Amino acid sequence: MSSLATPDIPLDPSQEIVVKFDDLHALLVKILVKKGMFQAEAKIAASRLVESDVRGIHSHGSRALPRYIEGMDAGDIDPRAQVTTVKETPAIALLDGGKGLGHVAATKGMQLAIEKARGVGTGTVVVRRGQHFGAAGVYVAMAAEAGMIGFCTTNTGPATVAAYGSRTPAVANPAIAWGVPSRVGPPFILDMACAASSWGRVESLKMYGRPLPAGWALDAAGNETCVAADAKTLQPSAGARGFGLAFMGAVLSGGLSGGRLPMHKTWSVNADGSEHFFYAIDLAQFVEPDRFHADVDSIMQEIRALAPAAGFDKVRMPGDIEAERTDRWKRDGIPLHRDHVNRLGELAAKLKIPVPWAS
Amino acid sequence: MSSLATPDIPLDPSQEIVVKFDDLHALLVKILVKKGMFQAEAKIAASRLVESDVRGIHSHGSRALPRYIEGMDAGDIDPRAQVTTVKETPAIALLDGGKGLGHVAATKGMQLAIEKARGVGTGTVVVRRGQHFGAAGVYVAMAAEAGMIGFCTTNTGPATVAAYGSRTPAVANPAIAWGVPSRVGPPFILDMACAASSWGRVESLKMYGRPLPAGWALDAAGNETCVAADAKTLQPSAGARGFGLAFMGAVLSGGLSGGRLPMHKTWSVNADGSEHFFYAIDLAQFVEPDRFHADVDSIMQEIRALAPAAGFDKVRMPGDIEAERTDRWKRDGIPLHRDHVNRLGELAAKLKIPVPWAS
Repeated sequence: MSSLATPDIPLDPSQEIVVKFDDLHALLVKILVKKGMFQAEAKIAASRLVESDVRGIHSHGSRALPRYIEGMDAGDIDPRAQVTTVKETPAIALLDGGKGLGHVAATKGMQLAIEKARGVGTGTVVVRRGQHFGAAGVYVAMAAEAGMIGFCTTNTGPATVAAYGSRTPAVANPAIAWGVPSRVGPPFILDMACAASSWGRVESLKMYGRPLPAGWALDAAGNETCVAADAKTLQPSAGARGFGLAFMGAVLSGGLSGGRLPMHKTWSVNADGSEHFFYAIDLAQFVEPDRFHADVDSIMQEIRALAPAAGFDKVRMPGDIEAERTDRWKRDGIPLHRDHVNRLGELAAKLKIPVPWAS
Repeated sequence: MSSLATPDIPLDPSQEIVVKFDDLHALLVKILVKKGMFQAEAKIAASRLVESDVRGIHSHGSRALPRYIEGMDAGDIDPRAQVTTVKETPAIALLDGGKGLGHVAATKGMQLAIEKARGVGTGTVVVRRGQHFGAAGVYVAMAAEAGMIGFCTTNTGPATVAAYGSRTPAVANPAIAWGVPSRVGPPFILDMACAASSWGRVESLKMYGRPLPAGWALDAAGNETCVAADAKTLQPSAGARGFGLAFMGAVLSGGLSGGRLPMHKTWSVNADGSEHFFYAIDLAQFVEPDRFHADVDSIMQEIRALAPAAGFDKVRMPGDIEAERTDRWKRDGIPLHRDHVNRLGELAAKLKIPVPWAS
C-alpha cells in the first residue's frame, strides 16, 4: 500500500473464529431478550450490530455488546425503554430515546426521517437521551435502501481528540456518515471518523498486536506514539477539518438536543448517554430518479474503472470494500477475533445460552 | 508552524495595495451595474465578494470578478437573470438560477432555506442553472447571523482532484461549509476544501511566488510537485474522506438538480454553470436557544483557552482567523495583491469607471 493508503482492518486467521451471520444474529437476539428487551426491538438491535460486523466494523458491532450489557446491569441502559416524540413538525422531530439501547432509537430516528422526507422532501430527526448507536454507516444505508440520500452523526463519550493547534482533547471522535443509493453497484456509504482513525480501529490493532501508523495518536504526556495501548488522544484528521467536523457532530446531535458536549462528558459513557442526528433527502422530490441514477451511478462506475495508483488493486467508492465484505461474510461466515468471541461466549454462559461455535 | 499546521494565506506588503472595504464594494457595484445588473442584485453580489475578501479568501472574492465579467461578455452569465422556483414544499425548494451571477441565486437560496426553517424547522434549497457562487463560508455565515445552523456545498467545474487510490481526477474540489451561531465569540464557520488545498490557495501561492507544501499536488504526468504552476491535479484531503466528501458535494448540488457531475463537466466553467445546495436548521425548534448557547458557546470558549501546541500562538475555532481578519481589514483596509488590483483596474478602465486607489 502506498503511504496515502489508510490501513484496512487487521485480519489474521490464526487469531480468529468464523461465525455464521444467522447464528450470530440469533445469539444476539437471545442475549438481548434474556436481558429484558422485547423480541422485536432485540431483533432491530441485533440486525444493526451484525450489519456492522459484516461490514468489518467489529468494534461497533457485536464486540461492543458486553459494554452495553454492563450498562443494562448498572441501570444506565433501559432494555424496556420507550422511544417517545418530544417535538414534531412535518419536517423535523426530536425523539427521546429513554436511555434504551441506542440502536433501537437510532433505527426509529432514521425511519422517521425517511418517512418525513417522503412527505415534504427532507426529514431531520434528533434523538436525545439515547445510547451508543454502533456504526453510523448502517443508518445511512437504511436511507440508501429506501432510495434516499442519508446523513447521520452522533455525540458519544468524552473529548479524546485534540483541537487543531493543541495537543489537548477538545472533541470526541464522532462518525460523519453519508449514504447515496445506487441502482448499479453498491450504494455510496461514507462512514468516516473525524480523527486520524476511529478508536475502534485503534482497539482492533491493539487486539491483533499491531502498531499504529505514525501521526495518529498521542500518549498521556502528549507525545506521539505508535503503541496502541499507549494511545490516549487522537490527532484530528486533516487538522482543522477533522477537528471542525467533530465539533459539528457534537453540535448537531448534542447541541440540538440539550445533551452535554464532549468536554463535559465523562468516561461513564453508558451513564452519560448519547445523542444522534439523522437527515434524509427524498431525491425524487428534486429530480427525476431515472435522471439522478443515470448521472450518479454512471459516474461511480467510471470512477471505479480509473487506473489504480501504486499500492491499490483497484479504485473503490466509499462503501465498496464493506459491501464486498458483506457479500463474502454473509456467505462464508464472519471471522471474529478469538478475544471477541470469548467475551461473547462468557456473556452467553452467564445467561445460560448455548453458543453456536465450538469452544 | 508545526508540520500539522495548514499554511495560512500568503501575505507580503511589498506586493500588495491596500483598498478600503467600502471603496471596493462601491467599485464592484458600479462594475456590475455597468454590465447590466440591477442595483439591488449588484449590491448582493458585491457584498458576498467583499465579505470573502475580508475573510482572506481573495480567490473567491473580488479576484474572481474578471472571470465572471468574461462570462457575461461571452453570453454565459446573464446579468438580468431571474431566479425562479421550480418545485417547492414547506421544507424544500428547487430554484432555477437562470445562469445569472451565482452569488445572487445562492443568496436567495440560503435566504429561502432560512425562511423555510423558521416555518418547519429546516429548509433545504437546491439551485440549478446557477453559476460559481464564490466562497461557501459567506452563505453559512448568513444562517449563523439568523441564529441558525447552516450547511452548503456546490458543484462547480470539472474533475481536478484524484480519486482515493488513483492519480486520475475523479471529483472537483467543492467547499463543504458549516456554520453555527454564537452569542459570545465569532460564529463557528468551517469552510473546507475537499482536496489537500483549495485551488484558490494554490493560485495565491503561485501569485506570491511561493512553493506548495509536499503532498498537495500532482503535475500533468501524475508525479508529485511543489511548483504551483505545474499543479494539474490535487490529492484528496485525508484520502478516502476528502474524496468521499467531494463526491457528496457533487451529488447534493449537481445530482439533485440534474446538473452534470465533475467528470462530465468541461473547462468552460461559465458555460457549464454550477449547482448549489443549502440547508438551514432552526435550532430553536429543537432546543431552548438559551440552553444551546450556554452549552455550545461555553465549549467554544473552553477550546479557545486550551494550551496551544508548538507552532501555534493560540487555539482557534474554525472561522476565528477569518473573523479576526474581517475586523482588522474592515477597519484598516484590505491588502490585495497588485496583480489582483491591476486586473480590477483594467476592468474598471474598460468600463470608464474611476478606481479608488492611486494607480
